Amino acid sequence: MTKAEAAALLKKERTEFERIKGKGLNLDMTRGKPGADLLGENMDLLDLVGSGTGFKSEDGTDCRNYGILDGLPEMRRLFAEMLGCKTQQVIAAGNSSLNLMFDAVAQGMTHGFGDKPWFSHQPIKFLCPAPGYDRHFAVCQHFGIEMITVDMTPDGPDMDAVEKLVKDSAVKGMWCVPKYSNPEGITYSEVVVRRIARLTPAARDFRVFWDNAYVIHDLTDETEPLLPILPECEAAANPDLVLMFASTSKITFPGAGVAAVAASESNIKLLRTRMSMQTIGPDKINQLRHARKFKDLAGLQSHMERFIPLLAPRFNAVIAVLERELSGSGVTWTNPKGGYFISVDVLPGTAKRVVELCKEGGVTLTAAGATFPCGRDPRDRNIRIAPTLPPVTELEAAMELFSVAVKMAALEQLSANS
Amino acid sequence: MTKAEAAALLKKERTEFERIKGKGLNLDMTRGKPGADLLGENMDLLDLVGSGTGFKSEDGTDCRNYGILDGLPEMRRLFAEMLGCKTQQVIAAGNSSLNLMFDAVAQGMTHGFGDKPWFSHQPIKFLCPAPGYDRHFAVCQHFGIEMITVDMTPDGPDMDAVEKLVKDSAVKGMWCVPKYSNPEGITYSEVVVRRIARLTPAARDFRVFWDNAYVIHDLTDETEPLLPILPECEAAANPDLVLMFASTSKITFPGAGVAAVAASESNIKLLRTRMSMQTIGPDKINQLRHARKFKDLAGLQSHMERFIPLLAPRFNAVIAVLERELSGSGVTWTNPKGGYFISVDVLPGTAKRVVELCKEGGVTLTAAGATFPCGRDPRDRNIRIAPTLPPVTELEAAMELFSVAVKMAALEQLSANS
Repeated sequence: MTKAEAAALLKKERTEFERIKGKGLNLDMTRGKPGADLLGENMDLLDLVGSGTGFKSEDGTDCRNYGILDGLPEMRRLFAEMLGCKTQQVIAAGNSSLNLMFDAVAQGMTHGFGDKPWFSHQPIKFLCPAPGYDRHFAVCQHFGIEMITVDMTPDGPDMDAVEKLVKDSAVKGMWCVPKYSNPEGITYSEVVVRRIARLTPAARDFRVFWDNAYVIHDLTDETEPLLPILPECEAAANPDLVLMFASTSKITFPGAGVAAVAASESNIKLLRTRMSMQTIGPDKINQLRHARKFKDLAGLQSHMERFIPLLAPRFNAVIAVLERELSGSGVTWTNPKGGYFISVDVLPGTAKRVVELCKEGGVTLTAAGATFPCGRDPRDRNIRIAPTLPPVTELEAAMELFSVAVKMAALEQLSANS
Repeated sequence: MTKAEAAALLKKERTEFERIKGKGLNLDMTRGKPGADLLGENMDLLDLVGSGTGFKSEDGTDCRNYGILDGLPEMRRLFAEMLGCKTQQVIAAGNSSLNLMFDAVAQGMTHGFGDKPWFSHQPIKFLCPAPGYDRHFAVCQHFGIEMITVDMTPDGPDMDAVEKLVKDSAVKGMWCVPKYSNPEGITYSEVVVRRIARLTPAARDFRVFWDNAYVIHDLTDETEPLLPILPECEAAANPDLVLMFASTSKITFPGAGVAAVAASESNIKLLRTRMSMQTIGPDKINQLRHARKFKDLAGLQSHMERFIPLLAPRFNAVIAVLERELSGSGVTWTNPKGGYFISVDVLPGTAKRVVELCKEGGVTLTAAGATFPCGRDPRDRNIRIAPTLPPVTELEAAMELFSVAVKMAALEQLSANS
């Protein structure tokens, strides 16, 4: 393509861009937030503990008063079923799994995991499969932890690289979103889970931070199976390797849900010691609401099935526009079977510009680079699309704008380089 | 008294002890927990956000979704009125003010307050007015912070000592429960508050941890006035000195309430940075419940008035038994106008034995020594009585047991020493 041809095409796309911009879109797609229709499926939750319902847990605890640091037995059992582990391996806590992860890293820094505080042997390094979740990386940055990017494969993190990197005793942790990963929607294969459970890190206080955020968050009638990691670790005589996290944030209400940490009893004992200094206990009334609503894993699963007809059309709408507008352009995208995101790789060197153009057109996307440590995508190509909030018609308009922006950014680059 | 006389009296008290023990008391008075009747005054709270009520805050935020790290505007305003500060100085957070205090100390350790992380200049010391709150001291122990006991006076901490001690740049913090202190029920005088606000510590990152746990927790129709500390600090050109904490744990439901931190905007900015790594936001639905129930300070106050006829008889029952059984014995106790505790000073060297005897008789008290740093009461004489949970009849039986135990422990000591 000549410079003149590129300029002419760019002009055409700019016209299309202005047309869509003229619609006055004002859409925030930065975060994975559920739409109002999904939230609406949960309203009965709020009525399940009230002035007329009783307020005792199954063991007779008055949920209105202090106590029960580990959370209600019925809530711990529910998480254990969901996460594939034993009830005594679970602490059901407050509203935020991110808070539990932050606190677990803080525990490592100030007190360690059975060895010296991480602070006392600098530098500390974490393995960060990328693209990944920006808030994981932000926790590392906050504590001055050096991040080592590990490539993602369609089966999970590049385990050859991981097995080599953990031979460095400064490597104390690794972030994982093992099911329907953020942002690519990848579920770790059995082989990958087994290799993780059998890691032999140089640092005996190395921990895998297993963020099982999308453990039952399917977008179709079939789930992608994930091998439960804690029994795998036990089988591998590596029981203390993994700290697992989850929450009901995208099951009931973000912010008003229940979060949990699950781990070996020795890890749980250590985390509980910290927690016992930190709080008297979690919001048991909110836990009681959740336990009453779902009762067991089957109850949870049938609840999640109600989201599929609300979420699938959104994901399908995004994919349909991408296929129609960008097929054969070199741009690639995921078509996940679960989770909350679609990951798009645009032409290298153009992601930042695409996000900038979308913003100009009224659609705020997750910042380009956010899916990599320190917000720096080495190829400047990955963009995370969060389709769960807007209604389908707005999503379609947003993705049309996005597609035009992708073409414009590529043509601008071509013009500059030719 | 001769040894024989003491032995005879001891035998008599032992008989009385066995009589009360025979009642089969089984009472846990270790913690300041509200009784079921107090909790019952709050049941309408649970109905204030439900499937039929709407779920938006006053600024139109959908409380069911992510966001609003600082908490709902109406909840921040409510705390600001309660604490005597500006709304923008408040973050309304999760369910536990202890968690906010722990996190603020953790912030100091790993990141500091505008200077280097506290970890980097060991040792770190905190001033601990005592008797005080055991969980404050436990946070210090957890982080390896050296505790310096400061005597309490009827007006608050011994400020001559405090002013001298803060000249040591290793002193980075000080715990205060300024109103109806735990356990003595002391409200800091205006002079003390003014002297605290005007402290000139050697460490510019010294912070006062102002735990305003009982700010509106009166036991009579009159409140003991407490000078609002943040305006005082501003007036003294010392705006960043104090971090204030409070919660609704003993206003609505312990564990299912809302906690807050209030401080200068520069401190709040610093804490917010940490929080933004730690969580997406607090449980806004629970904040909405609380804001709807109370609306403003007047609403809060009229709610608290309903507790007085439930709490005052409990405190009066404890005092009445102490007066009847122990007047003139050298044992002293407080008669607080608010808060959650009565503090008793038994004969030096006998507090541990009194608690042990009560346990044998079926009444578990807060461990002797718990009100001092590291759980060590240098005179082994202070015992914290928590009268808020049991009904009056059980309290009377418990205090009769307690009084006999106090006499027995004193007579045992006399026998041993004579």
